[in-house]
Amino acid sequence: MNELLVKDALKSFLKEDIGTGDLSAELVFGDEDRSEGVFLAKEEGVICGVGLIEKAYSLFEGEYSVTLCKKDGDAVKKGDIIARVEAKTKTMLSCERVVLNLMQLMSGIATLTRKYKQTLDDDTIRLCDTRKTHPGLRVFEKYAVRVGGGYNHRMALYDGVMLKDNHIAYAGSIEKAVALVKEKLGHMVKTEVETETSEQVQEAVKAGADVIMFDNRSPEEIKELVKLISKEKNIITEASGGIRLDTIATFKGCGVDYLSVGEITNGAKPLDISFNSTGALKPGSGGEYIAE
Amino acid sequence: MNELLVKDALKSFLKEDIGTGDLSAELVFGDEDRSEGVFLAKEEGVICGVGLIEKAYSLFEGEYSVTLCKKDGDAVKKGDIIARVEAKTKTMLSCERVVLNLMQLMSGIATLTRKYKQTLDDDTIRLCDTRKTHPGLRVFEKYAVRVGGGYNHRMALYDGVMLKDNHIAYAGSIEKAVALVKEKLGHMVKTEVETETSEQVQEAVKAGADVIMFDNRSPEEIKELVKLISKEKNIITEASGGIRLDTIATFKGCGVDYLSVGEITNGAKPLDISFNSTGALKPGSGGEYIAE
Amino acid sequence: MNELLVKDALKSFLKEDIGTGDLSAELVFGDEDRSEGVFLAKEEGVICGVGLIEKAYSLFEGEYSVTLCKKDGDAVKKGDIIARVEAKTKTMLSCERVVLNLMQLMSGIATLTRKYKQTLDDDTIRLCDTRKTHPGLRVFEKYAVRVGGGYNHRMALYDGVMLKDNHIAYAGSIEKAVALVKEKLGHMVKTEVETETSEQVQEAVKAGADVIMFDNRSPEEIKELVKLISKEKNIITEASGGIRLDTIATFKGCGVDYLSVGEITNGAKPLDISFNSTGALKPGSGGEYIAE
Amino acid sequence: MNELLVKDALKSFLKEDIGTGDLSAELVFGDEDRSEGVFLAKEEGVICGVGLIEKAYSLFEGEYSVTLCKKDGDAVKKGDIIARVEAKTKTMLSCERVVLNLMQLMSGIATLTRKYKQTLDDDTIRLCDTRKTHPGLRVFEKYAVRVGGGYNHRMALYDGVMLKDNHIAYAGSIEKAVALVKEKLGHMVKTEVETETSEQVQEAVKAGADVIMFDNRSPEEIKELVKLISKEKNIITEASGGIRLDTIATFKGCGVDYLSVGEITNGAKPLDISFNSTGALKPGSGGEYIAE
Amino acid sequence: MNELLVKDALKSFLKEDIGTGDLSAELVFGDEDRSEGVFLAKEEGVICGVGLIEKAYSLFEGEYSVTLCKKDGDAVKKGDIIARVEAKTKTMLSCERVVLNLMQLMSGIATLTRKYKQTLDDDTIRLCDTRKTHPGLRVFEKYAVRVGGGYNHRMALYDGVMLKDNHIAYAGSIEKAVALVKEKLGHMVKTEVETETSEQVQEAVKAGADVIMFDNRSPEEIKELVKLISKEKNIITEASGGIRLDTIATFKGCGVDYLSVGEITNGAKPLDISFNSTGALKPGSGGEYIAE
Amino acid sequence: MNELLVKDALKSFLKEDIGTGDLSAELVFGDEDRSEGVFLAKEEGVICGVGLIEKAYSLFEGEYSVTLCKKDGDAVKKGDIIARVEAKTKTMLSCERVVLNLMQLMSGIATLTRKYKQTLDDDTIRLCDTRKTHPGLRVFEKYAVRVGGGYNHRMALYDGVMLKDNHIAYAGSIEKAVALVKEKLGHMVKTEVETETSEQVQEAVKAGADVIMFDNRSPEEIKELVKLISKEKNIITEASGGIRLDTIATFKGCGVDYLSVGEITNGAKPLDISFNSTGALKPGSGGEYIAE
Repeated sequence: MNELLVKDALKSFLKEDIGTGDLSAELVFGDEDRSEGVFLAKEEGVICGVGLIEKAYSLFEGEYSVTLCKKDGDAVKKGDIIARVEAKTKTMLSCERVVLNLMQLMSGIATLTRKYKQTLDDDTIRLCDTRKTHPGLRVFEKYAVRVGGGYNHRMALYDGVMLKDNHIAYAGSIEKAVALVKEKLGHMVKTEVETETSEQVQEAVKAGADVIMFDNRSPEEIKELVKLISKEKNIITEASGGIRLDTIATFKGCGVDYLSVGEITNGAKPLDISFNSTGALKPGSGGEYIAE
Repeated sequence: MNELLVKDALKSFLKEDIGTGDLSAELVFGDEDRSEGVFLAKEEGVICGVGLIEKAYSLFEGEYSVTLCKKDGDAVKKGDIIARVEAKTKTMLSCERVVLNLMQLMSGIATLTRKYKQTLDDDTIRLCDTRKTHPGLRVFEKYAVRVGGGYNHRMALYDGVMLKDNHIAYAGSIEKAVALVKEKLGHMVKTEVETETSEQVQEAVKAGADVIMFDNRSPEEIKELVKLISKEKNIITEASGGIRLDTIATFKGCGVDYLSVGEITNGAKPLDISFNSTGALKPGSGGEYIAE
Repeated sequence: MNELLVKDALKSFLKEDIGTGDLSAELVFGDEDRSEGVFLAKEEGVICGVGLIEKAYSLFEGEYSVTLCKKDGDAVKKGDIIARVEAKTKTMLSCERVVLNLMQLMSGIATLTRKYKQTLDDDTIRLCDTRKTHPGLRVFEKYAVRVGGGYNHRMALYDGVMLKDNHIAYAGSIEKAVALVKEKLGHMVKTEVETETSEQVQEAVKAGADVIMFDNRSPEEIKELVKLISKEKNIITEASGGIRLDTIATFKGCGVDYLSVGEITNGAKPLDISFNSTGALKPGSGGEYIAE
Repeated sequence: MNELLVKDALKSFLKEDIGTGDLSAELVFGDEDRSEGVFLAKEEGVICGVGLIEKAYSLFEGEYSVTLCKKDGDAVKKGDIIARVEAKTKTMLSCERVVLNLMQLMSGIATLTRKYKQTLDDDTIRLCDTRKTHPGLRVFEKYAVRVGGGYNHRMALYDGVMLKDNHIAYAGSIEKAVALVKEKLGHMVKTEVETETSEQVQEAVKAGADVIMFDNRSPEEIKELVKLISKEKNIITEASGGIRLDTIATFKGCGVDYLSVGEITNGAKPLDISFNSTGALKPGSGGEYIAE
Repeated sequence: MNELLVKDALKSFLKEDIGTGDLSAELVFGDEDRSEGVFLAKEEGVICGVGLIEKAYSLFEGEYSVTLCKKDGDAVKKGDIIARVEAKTKTMLSCERVVLNLMQLMSGIATLTRKYKQTLDDDTIRLCDTRKTHPGLRVFEKYAVRVGGGYNHRMALYDGVMLKDNHIAYAGSIEKAVALVKEKLGHMVKTEVETETSEQVQEAVKAGADVIMFDNRSPEEIKELVKLISKEKNIITEASGGIRLDTIATFKGCGVDYLSVGEITNGAKPLDISFNSTGALKPGSGGEYIAE
Repeated sequence: MNELLVKDALKSFLKEDIGTGDLSAELVFGDEDRSEGVFLAKEEGVICGVGLIEKAYSLFEGEYSVTLCKKDGDAVKKGDIIARVEAKTKTMLSCERVVLNLMQLMSGIATLTRKYKQTLDDDTIRLCDTRKTHPGLRVFEKYAVRVGGGYNHRMALYDGVMLKDNHIAYAGSIEKAVALVKEKLGHMVKTEVETETSEQVQEAVKAGADVIMFDNRSPEEIKELVKLISKEKNIITEASGGIRLDTIATFKGCGVDYLSVGEITNGAKPLDISFNSTGALKPGSGGEYIAE
């Protein structure tokens, strides 16, 4: 992740939650009050986003220390300490919810991705994500997929061509659509073609598609379709549609290179993580909300 | 929702997905190409966010028409048409994913909120949300909760005081914490106190809390705790913790005013909605990606 | 105040004044030139905004030291030193005007607020502000009101409901307007109703208003109106309109809870504060404007 | 004023006040509800900022009409209608306070500027402003000075050189300071020198200053100082310091070209202007806050 | 080009040039004054960026008409009219320089690209750009390359992998570097490897590189190197370094797929284009700078 | 240069190039990997922008050291080391291209400016720039002109008045145009008038222009025109148009004060500068792109 993006995003998220001021913290605690606390896993899963704690604290004035006990990708179980922190109490409380919301989301995605992978149980097939992410959070969610052992499909509309039914219908045929694109496209961008039938697959091969996607095909159909593609040409195959946690095992051994699953980003339950004050609060000289 | 915020957010979400350009659409379609399409419900639920389609299209050059067939809060079933659109093909395709991602999220929240409400089946108790929202999307998610028949808890840290264990511990007691806050706080902001025992509830009442929250209490405990609160004083009660779709029915009749549920925002599955091109594509004079 | 907001605002204010560069400072001083100086009160008042000096300097490269001699809320008299600073000369001069403009404004507001309070001389009545603030500066001005001993009314349109004549006229009656609002509003937001007659006050009480405002009523009228409100219900009263420094004393003992005064924010004269170089200027190796 | 800047500023001011939503307006009025209203002068003065009404409304969806009855610079008296408007009720109410706050500030500045000018009663002397403006509002306030018949001093640190005591002390003398600057500065930027004595004035003339400022000099002293400056050289003179509404008449006939007055921007009382709904409110189909 | 990006960029460029206001235009022309004008080619070349005129005007208030006589990619000669415009005089003058600066830059790039292409005179080899663009202008410059008949290399660091000497040195070998990358990278991103010797080329082929770049190789060397690469594998070849307008003809027939040339973006002379007022200026009611 | 602007600009340029992440660097290097390197001149010229290296690195997490061997304005020859750096490898690689693109551009401008100056070889005439700069980069390019020994013309439309043919035609005459402007303009802004004939020059003198520009005049014509201007009045003369590197020597001794040359900013070739890793790469614990 580009840390410039991550820090700016964190700042805007903190502004969303703190706005004109954290009334509760400002009314009770002073600038000198400091606390200790821990981020704690409340259920089993894969942790992701531990670096955000320090990035969030660094946006505020005042010293702090963050000691990570887990790193991204580590398996955690209920009760595991993820990080120990010591900071200004106001900073700690004002950051708590945003950091948790983001870390829970990312850990949820990493956890679900790993679960899909383990359920599939086929090292020859890679799991990948889609563009079904929460608006504004794609860079975080695609990172979480990688942490969970998955792969990223194109990041967005700008870094890969995907020719779907409407592009193909407009161009007249898969061959014409791919030709139209290849005539103009730079050599660092790949072109993927969505197919449903063996005829379409063969047409896509002939057209010179870099990636061929089997849309909504069963494992059995996929087994047949992959045979149509010569490995010489370095064409990559992908299957998409109808791949859920309760069906993914049926795709084992189907021979496709990638399975793309929207649910790993938009269907992941947040992993339960909590923040607890642990150390004694050190009283300072009073609140800033009214300085008098 | 403040439309200035919504439009700026939409623009930044579209920039996340389109970036330097929608390669596929720009390489295939020209500025004159136009299409018709429908937004379609693929499963049963409560629709939310229909106004975003027009707001998204309005950010791009060119005419468009959006005819809404459903309005926010309408129940939809599989196959229902939500909106019919006619627009420049490139606009339509470049907006598709962002609009769907947001509308599916919001509809998922509205749907889950209504399901909680129906399962609870007690008109004397209101459901409300928490700050457990996706960073950057709170205004959209809190709106969806209202559309689903729920209520909003404080929007963020700036528009309500919530005194939790660490605030209280630091101040010395609930009474001292509330006094500390009330001494400085304006009269338009409410003060909520988190309690776990009947002693704490009584102390909160005495302290003058506006809202008293029962943290992680069973329906039976809640029934007892609400009795400690005189209705004369306009104190509002809220219960939080352990409220899930499979337990909420047990809270029926417990006498509390509000049940706050984090899961309605961070645990809602996106409602399945799709976008389909329907009308004939009208060929124009070719793509803009290379103007030659 | 949320320090993330404050720092971003300061940065944009400094950009307004420095723009493409502080010609005078860049042409005369080099990066190695450093100076000492003091912020000095030039008249009697309440100081506010001392923390901005360090926040402004911290936006620039280079070491600096700021020693505060006064803290927000302190009374100052002519000649009092507010802060001693040592920094790069260019930083010091480029920040001077923005820091002074803001600190003078805030100190002016704090001073006027305290003057109103002292003139009223009634500890049972609190003074509060309004939304009559300078666009873009509300968070600074509302903080200054608190520093001066006043209280904040709602921060903006999003954190409190205020039902005025047009809302009420549209709804049909105070009762209908309040009911309309309460049917949908979350439990952490208060509803205030503007009233002019005793009938309206009684209607507002019955409707369940949280705060009742007496609009443009004389102290005598207010005395009668507050009697209509039972203290049991925790209803807060507020009077607004016609409250000036030369009339506020007449409100002493009128029994209202809050007096809201637009003039404390939009009518405060800036407190005269100056910045003076004190220490010897330490010549360095020349200006950056032309590096040759 | 650059309309791109003005519109962006207005948008950010409206976001400050509306935030996540105008609760009162959204809970009571629907998208179809429309109103008529007038902006009304409540006291005598010079009106400024009438163009902001339309600019603010244009940021929101929906039709509106704004008919201006006064233009910037017009004298108004109590009761004068400044503009008649017809718009969506929600737009009208959500914009009201921001537009008023800004128009009152600008009109206050225009009014005070004209008052200074009339009190001075000397057409050979021009009044000008300083950089003592409210942070973030300089472009609005400097425009208001012009509308009031005053002139703008440099806009900021980037568009004019002003050599004060510390620049001069560091360089060694006025001559050295001006020479240092002129050696590097482009030919489109003027250099002003602050002086206090006749020796300094003579030195500044010799150094080739474009503008010479008499700092804190009495009208009598100024009369003598201006004699030291040959008109051949196109040197402009300016006096600054101690110029207040109760003293400015004494500067009549003193022979200086410009009097700069900080108070016209930072000491102007807002001109009292109100917004009143006039036309019948047209009920629509209900509020958007909860769409159900 | 993503029009959302383009419009935001144009707005920020116009703010850079207009700042607090276009003094000359505002002091002379009023809001009612309108003019006609033409954008004119002053020398021979390929025109690019004609769409920016309308995009710029659309950011300002007031009607305008833009009639394009040339479209992007058209060859122009001295005296050719590119576009005829009619607009508010102030809009026209305030936009002139920014539009010209950008259109001249883009046309210069398109012209140089075409010149390279014509000089090379080999349809089997494509010209492409690099990341040597002016910061902040990449999207405009890469578009101009396409308009000139060239192709885009990766847009930036995020949409393609390029393994250079330091990546390879660190990994230990080309094979190890490619393996390291491929183990983690998604299937829509290509991996290019920089090579200098035939051994390295062979290693890159074996490693599975998608694109192999010959760094600073002569046409003769390239002829040999391409022979090492089997066309079966869909590997694309690129040569880079030492390719200038006076040397490119020597690369004719060398058999490489792409020649990447930094100079087409960072070494292009702006194409001379001017803007001339043509129609009679229609006097209005005076300037806005001082409204009095 | 205002360092607040510079740092924000650098950040946005880095975001343009790094976007969602530097794939190559993130896939190969870990957070602990560090490198040493040098910025090296590859050809003779004037170096400019050395301060950007440190400013860029400072935007990223992690320690770094930058030792400058050259300062802005220094002449460099092929092989000269400009700066030695030690930093996190990922930071170094992700910043490389942006820093080079900007430093090459700025050094190219400084070099060309000095070349013009040396070719002119007349110390009584100053070279200055125009507004022909790359959009978004003006502050960098105008600084580079100063570094090269040139002077800045007005920065933009807001800090100087330039009356051209259309302003004059509209006003009716040069005298009327200048009078119109001077009636309203503040005393810190200069007014320049474009002239072509001796009649126009005389009219401009009479009108009180501060700067008179001879548009597209030959050196011989200029010699005559400058005689029309009395030095008493402090009027500055400028010649513009047709001034190229191959013609500038003919302007020697023509008596004008300034020659303005668009080409020094928009026609400068980037100075060839490279970045080379020098020190041994220190292997760390692996990449962040996938944290597992």
